[in-house]
Amino acid sequence: MKKVFVTGAAGFIGSTLIDRLLADGVSVVGWDNFSTGQERFLEGARGQQAFTLVRGDNLDLPALTAAMRGCDFVFHLAANADIKDGWQHPKKDLEQNTIATFNVLEAMRANGVKRIAFSSTGSVYGEALVTPEKPTPETDDFPIQTSLYGASKTAGEGLLAAYAEGSQIDEAYIFRFVSILGERYTHGHVFDFYKQLIEHPDHLRVLGDGTQRKGYLYVQDCIAAMLHVTRAHTARDAKHHTQIYNLGTPEFVQVNDSIAHICAALNLKPRLEYTGGNRGWIGDNPFIFLDTKKIQSTGWKPQLTIKQGIERTLRWLQANRWVYEARH
Amino acid sequence: MKKVFVTGAAGFIGSTLIDRLLADGVSVVGWDNFSTGQERFLEGARGQQAFTLVRGDNLDLPALTAAMRGCDFVFHLAANADIKDGWQHPKKDLEQNTIATFNVLEAMRANGVKRIAFSSTGSVYGEALVTPEKPTPETDDFPIQTSLYGASKTAGEGLLAAYAEGSQIDEAYIFRFVSILGERYTHGHVFDFYKQLIEHPDHLRVLGDGTQRKGYLYVQDCIAAMLHVTRAHTARDAKHHTQIYNLGTPEFVQVNDSIAHICAALNLKPRLEYTGGNRGWIGDNPFIFLDTKKIQSTGWKPQLTIKQGIERTLRWLQANRWVYEARH
Repeated sequence: MKKVFVTGAAGFIGSTLIDRLLADGVSVVGWDNFSTGQERFLEGARGQQAFTLVRGDNLDLPALTAAMRGCDFVFHLAANADIKDGWQHPKKDLEQNTIATFNVLEAMRANGVKRIAFSSTGSVYGEALVTPEKPTPETDDFPIQTSLYGASKTAGEGLLAAYAEGSQIDEAYIFRFVSILGERYTHGHVFDFYKQLIEHPDHLRVLGDGTQRKGYLYVQDCIAAMLHVTRAHTARDAKHHTQIYNLGTPEFVQVNDSIAHICAALNLKPRLEYTGGNRGWIGDNPFIFLDTKKIQSTGWKPQLTIKQGIERTLRWLQANRWVYEARH
Repeated sequence: MKKVFVTGAAGFIGSTLIDRLLADGVSVVGWDNFSTGQERFLEGARGQQAFTLVRGDNLDLPALTAAMRGCDFVFHLAANADIKDGWQHPKKDLEQNTIATFNVLEAMRANGVKRIAFSSTGSVYGEALVTPEKPTPETDDFPIQTSLYGASKTAGEGLLAAYAEGSQIDEAYIFRFVSILGERYTHGHVFDFYKQLIEHPDHLRVLGDGTQRKGYLYVQDCIAAMLHVTRAHTARDAKHHTQIYNLGTPEFVQVNDSIAHICAALNLKPRLEYTGGNRGWIGDNPFIFLDTKKIQSTGWKPQLTIKQGIERTLRWLQANRWVYEARH
């Protein structure tokens, strides 16, 4: 990993990864269309010689191909992550997730780049049967997709694997994320809840009935996990040259637990209003809990618990209220 | 099912389905871009009042939407089925299978069409672990895709399921086909072998080592299965409004067995030349054997064995050598 191409460079995870790569002495080309990315997240990177920022969209294959020239690894993190509102713009998931991933792979082919890591999602499991004792493993039953987002990420995973099997790439890493938390977090329930509590500290509206259970992972832990296995080349000799890892902590929290952590940290006691039902939105999965034994067996361990991740996220949001004014 | 929209209308399976629907008194709008479809397959249908043919491509959403007006069911059979040569034109699977399926679903949404059947493939299982005693069930392990074709069909399946879960459609039927045989067959190993034997009856070149084992199904059995479950509305009350069925016979044959059937039927003894390896092409799965217990439990049964299907196919090819001159 000498020169890395990062899509979604100005995003939450992309910009954090870039800071880490630069600190490790790796050159980085950052690529972002700034549809949701934040210039300010790249302030540290932009001062450094080893960093180049290119503004562009994944649907523009010629520009993407040109920008990727000379790179030897791709972190493909750019995506439409607006799961909840998928039905307001169904084409967005197709374009920004499925077609975008195809273009990234074609740009790699044109440039002879042979290694890629892809941020997928636990949503690809649809509504997997899961219990607190039996989280979802990577080899779970062939799922039925329940959201456009999940379907588009499944499509992206399939493309990576097909390119690897077809010897177009040598190493394909697919990371199925739980929700990621931490500094630069700009999207998700902690973001939404804190926003509400700024506006009306005595009242919190909750999608669903608060019993939804989800896994979360701290962004630095997420990045450490991805770098850990990609640097060990675990996909090189894997079957089909493809490695799939669930990324999360070996725990989950209820939305209600999460609300309790948030309120304790902010010292607030809002009245809770539930919209009802056991789902936050159409296609929401009321229980996402990924089995992370595979990634842990490689020697990686998360450093923060979900509760600690929530607290860090809140501290950062408190210090960076500007993100609520920024375009998302 | 009063007025049915069929994509891939001039194809092998599409045209055969249309003849069957018309015979059953159902009105049909046939849609085809004639990239591989054959005018002659629609000769019988075109004389009938209940049939309308519209020439168009699935990438042209406005035209597709206009053509679908007034229909109440969609059989989405159009696809790029050229699996072997996927790497010569990687965009074809993305466009003609994934994006095309998205457009079909969007056209349905615009027209309020609520039921769809989709021809998927056993290739979505990638290289599933399978033994003669344990064929691949619909709920097999989450597969790793091994071809662009399989990846694009998996993407299509995911879209159907997401639309069903999102209440955009009421019934989604996904049929994972083995290879289909029978009258109007214009693509596959029997087609290729017979072509070779016309040109040089004493010599047959075989991709791989001849030990590849595959399932096959006779086209009329395939159509009967699809009509059987869609007419019974099995997806209406299914979880996620989605029903997935493997379609095949409860048997498989080796390529070598198939060659023996072909040579016996033609009374030929060609010298066999094997290209070697246990795969016919990159991403080929050396053993495809689908578990068909689910579709059989609905009361459907195949009428023909694989051997009988091969014989019918050959008889048709012998009587219709013009297909070898036609554009595919």
